[in-house]
Amino acid sequence: MPFRKITQEDITFFKSVTTYVFTDSEQLNRCASDETEDLHYTPEVVIQPSTVEEVSKIMKYCNEQTIPVTPRGAGTGLSGGALAIFGGLVLDMKRFNKILQLDKRNFQVTTEPGVITQELQEYVKAEGLFYPPDPASKGSCFIGGNVSENSGGPKAVKYGVVKDYVLNIEMVLSNGEVIWTGANVLKNATGYNLTQLVVGSEGTLGIITKIVLRLIPAVKHDILMLVPFRSAEEACATVNAIFLAGYTPSALEFMERDALVWSMQYVQTTSIQLPGDIEAHLLIEVDGNDMDVLYKEAEAITEIVQGFDIGEVLFADSHEQKQMLWNLRRKVGEAVKSNSVYKEEDTVVPRAELPELLSTVKRISKKYGFQSICYGHAGDGNLHVNIVKAGMSDEEWNTGLTEGIKELFKEVVRMGGTISGEHGIGLVQKPYMDIAFSPLQIQLMRQIKNVFDPVGILNPGKIF
Amino acid sequence: MPFRKITQEDITFFKSVTTYVFTDSEQLNRCASDETEDLHYTPEVVIQPSTVEEVSKIMKYCNEQTIPVTPRGAGTGLSGGALAIFGGLVLDMKRFNKILQLDKRNFQVTTEPGVITQELQEYVKAEGLFYPPDPASKGSCFIGGNVSENSGGPKAVKYGVVKDYVLNIEMVLSNGEVIWTGANVLKNATGYNLTQLVVGSEGTLGIITKIVLRLIPAVKHDILMLVPFRSAEEACATVNAIFLAGYTPSALEFMERDALVWSMQYVQTTSIQLPGDIEAHLLIEVDGNDMDVLYKEAEAITEIVQGFDIGEVLFADSHEQKQMLWNLRRKVGEAVKSNSVYKEEDTVVPRAELPELLSTVKRISKKYGFQSICYGHAGDGNLHVNIVKAGMSDEEWNTGLTEGIKELFKEVVRMGGTISGEHGIGLVQKPYMDIAFSPLQIQLMRQIKNVFDPVGILNPGKIF
Repeated sequence: MPFRKITQEDITFFKSVTTYVFTDSEQLNRCASDETEDLHYTPEVVIQPSTVEEVSKIMKYCNEQTIPVTPRGAGTGLSGGALAIFGGLVLDMKRFNKILQLDKRNFQVTTEPGVITQELQEYVKAEGLFYPPDPASKGSCFIGGNVSENSGGPKAVKYGVVKDYVLNIEMVLSNGEVIWTGANVLKNATGYNLTQLVVGSEGTLGIITKIVLRLIPAVKHDILMLVPFRSAEEACATVNAIFLAGYTPSALEFMERDALVWSMQYVQTTSIQLPGDIEAHLLIEVDGNDMDVLYKEAEAITEIVQGFDIGEVLFADSHEQKQMLWNLRRKVGEAVKSNSVYKEEDTVVPRAELPELLSTVKRISKKYGFQSICYGHAGDGNLHVNIVKAGMSDEEWNTGLTEGIKELFKEVVRMGGTISGEHGIGLVQKPYMDIAFSPLQIQLMRQIKNVFDPVGILNPGKIF
Repeated sequence: MPFRKITQEDITFFKSVTTYVFTDSEQLNRCASDETEDLHYTPEVVIQPSTVEEVSKIMKYCNEQTIPVTPRGAGTGLSGGALAIFGGLVLDMKRFNKILQLDKRNFQVTTEPGVITQELQEYVKAEGLFYPPDPASKGSCFIGGNVSENSGGPKAVKYGVVKDYVLNIEMVLSNGEVIWTGANVLKNATGYNLTQLVVGSEGTLGIITKIVLRLIPAVKHDILMLVPFRSAEEACATVNAIFLAGYTPSALEFMERDALVWSMQYVQTTSIQLPGDIEAHLLIEVDGNDMDVLYKEAEAITEIVQGFDIGEVLFADSHEQKQMLWNLRRKVGEAVKSNSVYKEEDTVVPRAELPELLSTVKRISKKYGFQSICYGHAGDGNLHVNIVKAGMSDEEWNTGLTEGIKELFKEVVRMGGTISGEHGIGLVQKPYMDIAFSPLQIQLMRQIKNVFDPVGILNPGKIF
């Protein structure tokens, strides 16, 4: 790409817009990586704007000067979306950190993109409202990043993903112009759905500066149980049995034995008994406002799981125990990362194909000689496959692995699934896009990108 | 637009693709109008393809020959989307009438677009599954039209609109090429969301030939009540009070006095007592699988409505009475239409602004001297405003009315709302698009249209 280097003149312009312009190695290094594997791309400058006017001026200038702009949230992404692979400018959105308005009457909140997701959740919860999407990194990720990646999390199985809560977005286009994508309404049949086009577009269509989210009434109670299975495939099959019986848990998470073992080591707990014959666990939550109904549901689900070859079911009997179980689940990713170089795949299939997906992962792992740790949002058919380098040679890791992932993704697509459920394509899944899409589909997406960003400065080198 | 007339040569080509090519006046007249006001645009030819290959051949030819193509579902649209305003070809999708596959394991159904919505609902219900979106015309409209308009209906307030159920679409582009828009999964972070771009695009981006819908488990029970209010504005205010108390009814419909009176006359019933001081009704439904919970919810909602100035609440005590009440609600549109020439507006605002919307409609009606009948999906903030010609002169009707509608739409947008909640823009709302959108927003939409249909043959003259 014909991007030129940033000059002192450019820096002088940026400093005329905001004083938050950084070229020191500390800031450049901080913005050189995210939570994706072991990748580093150092930007030439980091800017932290705090108003839409500042963003607009910066974009207009960069568009005219053909300077690549990579927007960055909290840097918790798992597909390399925030990496400035062509250098240029990182637009670090951390100072867009205000919740602007809670409209309690309409169950809506307007927020800037740099607000931490959990803080937003707690803010609305204090007012009796609920914003469900809860990625594992919710304690540190930004809501703007969640919107850009269309994030999910455990609650998605009952409450949907980010796209189901975004009503309207204020966005700065590549040329500095500002638009809203929709209206603050629950139903909208007015023109094309630009809002849903922007959700999950990974910062390639514009810079998100405000987000209007719909909220739902807070839910009062939940019951959480951990169910150990002697067969991992049977655990996957159980997921569908629960849905076929007519129940929709508020979370239905799968963890292979190793996922739980590594997570327990990582958080330094021995609180879960793990007999040698247990291959996997399901973490199952039901929630609602009526405890009697919840007890009935939990009882019915217990009966269903008892139809399979399981160990002793653990019912969380306190808030602390629930926190402990959720913490173990949420830390699996970090635990694997701390253990070895790894690659994380984010496969998703129609829910009932989950047992086949798991056996396919294991078959391909064996064929290509890599170790895989599987866990994830089984209720949505969304299985995270962490591929661990462990004892593989660099050559095996760098060449054989790509073939293995290709083979896995082809199988996923054959099952009616696709290559990312909630992490996005970004940089690291880009080489596999032609497995999920035909050249024609990719061409249409590229042309849509071109409508919003004809010069091609916005997060270049991502998705396509 | 530089569209040429269809020639005998064109007809010969079309007949080589399918025998279902019609140029007789009966078929042309049948396809000359939909349920929008009193509009007639006679196409030059009507074709009824039944395979994606036939659609592909027809589109390729029309694209090369610059022949406008207007796709048509059941012709129940309320914004003129199916009208061939430049003549040319109507692609009548009625022979795409097969439900192709019910995937019970994954709660998914794959259908052709020409299936009647209610038939689809009944088909999946027989298998214990539920497809909620239920426009008033569900007994005659096609699912493909519902997808094209992003239709809603009473159940949207709890279960969402069509866009919340569409997973994947097979579509023929203007040049005859065929794509799928997504994958058959519940979560998808793989590239741009083409599926949501196509939902609600009113046949301007491609011809829908297959639709994959997600389903949910069937719901066993419901309770329905009709609540009469002495103040219509108070009825609107009650809607929000119910949500603020934490309840989400499965339907929350508003009907002005005249709406109910006209509907009762139309269906020839006197089954509802209507004391002279009643200005409006709310029709409230709760649903679920546990009757005890439903009774509690109905009781709590009854307590809430009793805090307002209401008449005697009618609880439907039989399936037949429920059917009767729903029939009265569904027939309001037809009843108004049978009474007078009218225009139907489909305003939507954030729910809590509903009382202000209603009083604004009445103020503007008075100012411009027209009679308005209001009803609709109050739980979503979606109010249908039927403007009745009644005693207005043709001049008042043709000139003053447009000004009145403009004023209304400006107020709607000021309240955070927009100009169509579920009927689409089509032909008749097109003159008001600049109230809902800036020139820049419209330009982006036009350019997206251009990506899919560079020659501009697909449903030309709609939306923009």
